[in-house]
Amino acid sequence: MYRDFYTVIPAGGAGTRLWPLSRAHRPKFLLPLIGGRSLLQLTAQRVEPFSPPDRIYTVSGAAHLASIARQLPELPEQNLLVEPGMRGTGTAITLAALLIARRDPEAIMGSFAADHKIGDTAAFRRALASAIESANEGYLTTIGIEPDRPETGYGYIERSDDRALPGAYFAHRFVEKPDLATAEQFLANGRYLWNASMFVWRIDVFLSEFERAQPELFAALQRIADWWEDDRRQEDIERAWLDLPVTTIDQGLMEHVDRFVVVPVEMGWSDIGDWKGFSELVEADADANCFQGEVIAEEANRCVVWSEQDRPVALVGVENLAIIDLADALLVVDREKAQNVRAIVSKLERERPDLT
Amino acid sequence: MYRDFYTVIPAGGAGTRLWPLSRAHRPKFLLPLIGGRSLLQLTAQRVEPFSPPDRIYTVSGAAHLASIARQLPELPEQNLLVEPGMRGTGTAITLAALLIARRDPEAIMGSFAADHKIGDTAAFRRALASAIESANEGYLTTIGIEPDRPETGYGYIERSDDRALPGAYFAHRFVEKPDLATAEQFLANGRYLWNASMFVWRIDVFLSEFERAQPELFAALQRIADWWEDDRRQEDIERAWLDLPVTTIDQGLMEHVDRFVVVPVEMGWSDIGDWKGFSELVEADADANCFQGEVIAEEANRCVVWSEQDRPVALVGVENLAIIDLADALLVVDREKAQNVRAIVSKLERERPDLT
Repeated sequence: MYRDFYTVIPAGGAGTRLWPLSRAHRPKFLLPLIGGRSLLQLTAQRVEPFSPPDRIYTVSGAAHLASIARQLPELPEQNLLVEPGMRGTGTAITLAALLIARRDPEAIMGSFAADHKIGDTAAFRRALASAIESANEGYLTTIGIEPDRPETGYGYIERSDDRALPGAYFAHRFVEKPDLATAEQFLANGRYLWNASMFVWRIDVFLSEFERAQPELFAALQRIADWWEDDRRQEDIERAWLDLPVTTIDQGLMEHVDRFVVVPVEMGWSDIGDWKGFSELVEADADANCFQGEVIAEEANRCVVWSEQDRPVALVGVENLAIIDLADALLVVDREKAQNVRAIVSKLERERPDLT
Repeated sequence: MYRDFYTVIPAGGAGTRLWPLSRAHRPKFLLPLIGGRSLLQLTAQRVEPFSPPDRIYTVSGAAHLASIARQLPELPEQNLLVEPGMRGTGTAITLAALLIARRDPEAIMGSFAADHKIGDTAAFRRALASAIESANEGYLTTIGIEPDRPETGYGYIERSDDRALPGAYFAHRFVEKPDLATAEQFLANGRYLWNASMFVWRIDVFLSEFERAQPELFAALQRIADWWEDDRRQEDIERAWLDLPVTTIDQGLMEHVDRFVVVPVEMGWSDIGDWKGFSELVEADADANCFQGEVIAEEANRCVVWSEQDRPVALVGVENLAIIDLADALLVVDREKAQNVRAIVSKLERERPDLT
């Protein structure tokens, strides 16, 4: 029998590159994108066979707590952790691990971002089962995505050919986002996997490795965890938290360990970072268009339309556009320039903060 | 002293290529496009020094009569001619000429489309004065536009070097829309002018030439003109009109005459046929964008935005698009494919006639 499995879902970040659909008060992970369900809800649903609701934790800002509480009504309130400021996923996950360890020192935990899409839930669950097996053996484990294109927007994990277990390989390094030529080599090589920031480990193993890699940060987080349940300590927690450095798991921990294990998987994964990637959410038609709402197209290709207005959208002779048609804003963006939507949001933050 | 000058404004055609701004019930010439005034109103205003309101006639379908009557309140009601069906500008203009001839057999008339834009009114009026002088001498006269680009979307007039009067040249032929290589030759040649369907002539000269070129049609139109003021003849008029062939001035008359006179002019003319040409209406900014409504742009070039919605339109990394944002429809079109908007309108005529 395995130890009990706990899930931590870091739910930070507004996803401003999906403006105007995502807003500061309506971040990407809360949007009802797929069959009326949010990516957060789907993330919790995917781990259900492993973590019943009382073993699922979220870590978010206070601004989103109420929405999270309503979207995941089955989670106990004390599992909805609030970070007083965003200090990176490494900090958020370690706090959650410290709190879970107090409840169950034998626990295995997995951490999965709130705003990723996974098309093939069965494949995810098979990979997670393998990762839990690997974690049970004491390995720091990650789930890596088999690339299907030379993507330059993601970091990679280089695996070895040595297996820790069937379907689970030893790995020694994370690789930064490559240029296109390097990404093409990675794809041809076959041992490079996309880093989707999915981590599975025994909490005791993780905490001792993290303490070794980041002794000061670890000590500070331990103090915060000690105070956590004490209402009189709220201001101390906030002050201590805001003094913490921003730390990711990749840089704060994984770069400091000699080896870890990666479970490769193909499962229709996407981080839907911007309007370029958004079409991976909705099924495309024969012209590679993804339409939500009433759309009439004449020679339109590779276009995304998301319309919440009660009127038709007509496209004529256009390619590779994303058109987001909401009651209070209309965005038309070339999907190859999708990352520049951030510039619009920056302008609006100064001039029309009500729209951001 | 010249004879009295009468203006005829054929106001047919919905301009479906400017959908969704233009509709069957709201054709291009009625839209308040420039400073809140319609192209029809501006057309009437331009001829004011030559034709007082009681000498201006319109020819339109019944569907637009009420709007025309309200937009041009100073025109006598009997000057607002209604054609029972569209049978081409040749038919419409000849009917108007026959009716004007009954009132003033000595008249000179000019015919100007209701939906063209002219930037330089003074230049137009100078050209019209020359054309009236030429018409007074008995010449069939047209005003031709000096081309500033090798346009393939317009027909041309080839002038000779022989002058009938200062600034007025004899010409012998109209030329169909050319291909690009031919249009470039026309531009280099210097004797080719755009045909803007602006005709100026003595009505007696015109009617005798038209009778010679189209004897049967002329006889039929004369019968209709005889019946025109007789209310008991309305059904006869309608039946006779609907039996008429479609005839333009170019094909019905100008191709059958040996020579005519053309007055060349530069006057910022555009027929604003579709969303490609629409930017000639509104002044462009430094990035060649023409925006009406609240627009936030990040790397947008040569885009037209016409927004009637109370919300911002954000453009990111897009080029040469027209975006028409109305309460009941949104159009996004590549301006180079603007002529295909007609295909959308055809689809809508079957599926959503309320939107056409």
